[in-house]
Amino acid sequence: MSEQGSKPVRIGLLGRGTVGGAFAALIAERAAAVEAACGRRPEISGVLTRGEGDFDEILAASDLVVELIGGTGPAREHVLAALRAGRPVVTANKQLLAQHGDELFEVAREAGVQIRFEAAVAGVIPIVRVIQESFGATEISKVFGIVNGTTNFILSEMAATGAAYEDVLERAKELGYAESDPSDDVNGADAAAKMAILARLAFHTPITLAEVAYEGIETIQPDDLAYAKELGLSLKLLGVAERRGEADLSVRVFPCFLYGGHPLAPVSGPFNAVMVEAPAITEVTMSGPGAGGTQTASAVLGDVVSILAGEAPVSRPRERLNLVTDVGSSFYLHLEVADRPGVLARIAQVLGDNGISVKSVVQRGIGDDARLVMVVHECLESQFAAAVEEIGRLDDMRSAPRSIRVIEEEFV
Amino acid sequence: MSEQGSKPVRIGLLGRGTVGGAFAALIAERAAAVEAACGRRPEISGVLTRGEGDFDEILAASDLVVELIGGTGPAREHVLAALRAGRPVVTANKQLLAQHGDELFEVAREAGVQIRFEAAVAGVIPIVRVIQESFGATEISKVFGIVNGTTNFILSEMAATGAAYEDVLERAKELGYAESDPSDDVNGADAAAKMAILARLAFHTPITLAEVAYEGIETIQPDDLAYAKELGLSLKLLGVAERRGEADLSVRVFPCFLYGGHPLAPVSGPFNAVMVEAPAITEVTMSGPGAGGTQTASAVLGDVVSILAGEAPVSRPRERLNLVTDVGSSFYLHLEVADRPGVLARIAQVLGDNGISVKSVVQRGIGDDARLVMVVHECLESQFAAAVEEIGRLDDMRSAPRSIRVIEEEFV
Repeated sequence: MSEQGSKPVRIGLLGRGTVGGAFAALIAERAAAVEAACGRRPEISGVLTRGEGDFDEILAASDLVVELIGGTGPAREHVLAALRAGRPVVTANKQLLAQHGDELFEVAREAGVQIRFEAAVAGVIPIVRVIQESFGATEISKVFGIVNGTTNFILSEMAATGAAYEDVLERAKELGYAESDPSDDVNGADAAAKMAILARLAFHTPITLAEVAYEGIETIQPDDLAYAKELGLSLKLLGVAERRGEADLSVRVFPCFLYGGHPLAPVSGPFNAVMVEAPAITEVTMSGPGAGGTQTASAVLGDVVSILAGEAPVSRPRERLNLVTDVGSSFYLHLEVADRPGVLARIAQVLGDNGISVKSVVQRGIGDDARLVMVVHECLESQFAAAVEEIGRLDDMRSAPRSIRVIEEEFV
Repeated sequence: MSEQGSKPVRIGLLGRGTVGGAFAALIAERAAAVEAACGRRPEISGVLTRGEGDFDEILAASDLVVELIGGTGPAREHVLAALRAGRPVVTANKQLLAQHGDELFEVAREAGVQIRFEAAVAGVIPIVRVIQESFGATEISKVFGIVNGTTNFILSEMAATGAAYEDVLERAKELGYAESDPSDDVNGADAAAKMAILARLAFHTPITLAEVAYEGIETIQPDDLAYAKELGLSLKLLGVAERRGEADLSVRVFPCFLYGGHPLAPVSGPFNAVMVEAPAITEVTMSGPGAGGTQTASAVLGDVVSILAGEAPVSRPRERLNLVTDVGSSFYLHLEVADRPGVLARIAQVLGDNGISVKSVVQRGIGDDARLVMVVHECLESQFAAAVEEIGRLDDMRSAPRSIRVIEEEFV
């Protein structure tokens, strides 16, 4: 018992589906990093699946329980039993929290142990922690956003291609963005469960799934999206939890148009994004991929680390990395050139000689106003500097070349 | 001593400038909320300003010290003294952390107390907590973003108006987005200090301000922005901290073009935004307003709450809000109409009778394909439903009206 601090932390893992498997792999891979972050090394001490393992034995041999079974049947009983036995619990189970939150939190309080559930809402976006901790004493007025990646993918595709809902849904299934039975995603029920959880946290008030009104996207027509585009609008399935006046609250899920300048408007594909509004902070927007196995497992691991750390770790250098300065970049290059034949060829030659390829080029102006504006693909900064110096010495130049770095990735 | 739990937490406040004043006001306003969140009520037990207060007396009468003096002179000595005396410290001082991080964290470890500094980086965006806690055991590959609101405002304005750097800088000063001496903002030094802090946290390696290469935006020409717009690019001052290979790291600040689909491309005006990339999470983007007095004070309060809470609070209902369902919204309305005179007038009449005003309307098609697509300003959902029902009964309708909610705000 006196060596408790150096003993591994035994994790009882309930469920070994996509997320459970990814979590077990992540624990194996990151055990040393977890130990560095919080002083204790985690290990999986038992796994409960439908076919194998005994819950009571796994519980007895664990210091902490991770529930990744899903649903409200055995998951609820196991989580309650673990909390009552004094084990902190990490879960990714949104239905459990949205339907039985009161009971779970009450039992956790009585037992004096933590229940953490970052992975239950909004994929890798750490919105639970941010609301509970960063804004724990802030008077939040509104939490809203895109909390279902399947529907956001479908709406983005419909807007981009003009295709019908049914066709895009099939494509989403093929790509793994929609389940074979996507009902709870497309009818808004999944988003409603997440909004019940966020509303409870943001407004410190008991809200259950049954109280959240929701609409889905099944009846959206392609021509609505086409007309809306003309009006500068893009369509999202939004979850909104909003304080109204002193004592009123509205929690809903519905498809909704946004104008182009809205922070959620550019969020496309299978992404999630959540905004928090409060007088003291104005607003914060967080976005990232919706749930995937590894991403969800990563959120679960973050919760495990928090429980093990107990309090925020003091930053401790544990790596010694070399600072490098000559790195790769794409560049924008602006050249004021003499308007004479062969200029572009001579410049392209210099770039080619230095191993630099051109992504796009625009020629503008004539006579004393002629200029070339180009973007080149990624190359080492030293490579680019050498080419620019050489170009600057050409007789064709009317002034010194100007350049600015470019992030080449196009996310759309 | 046995009543420690019910005693107020005494906060020694160092500095009462814009942020210090806002923090004192926020403590007064939110003391009850802090107590509800973590069981202890905060109070300001002493304030040190240039003209009044004695540091040693304030330290002796405090349980926790909040440093909002700024700079590295007395702030460094006071923070070190507070940590050595066993007081947790919250600071918003980026220069102190970027230049003396090693010393501060070492002393905090020896004393076994926390030093928290969410407010030092990226305004209200809780990036410090997210990197340290949510991604504390994640192998982060890259942290980058817009960490200076002054320069982002200037670049956004230059792009939008075509105005010269000097003119936009003057406008930024008038609006309070730039200080009277904006050198450290526009030359990249401020962003470099923030990137030194983020690089240390993300990569667990000692990095100081002196090691961060930086460039500013002083030489950006309006025509660069104009040409770049044609190429689909927008310009940001980026801070980038990136792991390269096994043991190399690059930390830099430079102006950089982004393509339209990049998550940082739509971040305009005096906003900050930070992206974290890691194999396990793909990416998370967080954005919000750059520092203002209240916003910075709010981040400081979040850190104070974290220290008082010790561990994550278990969600506890403490409010009983009423769920309301008839709330206000703007709407998109799609009407397939008969192509005959007076249709628009009749529909507008119904909307007007129900107190609903039209924001925009598009008439499309002729004959059997005629339709009206409109957006109406915010009204109660019950109001809108009544109007739509009435419109649906008009002889002019070829099919049932279709409607979708609209978020009316245009942020640009």
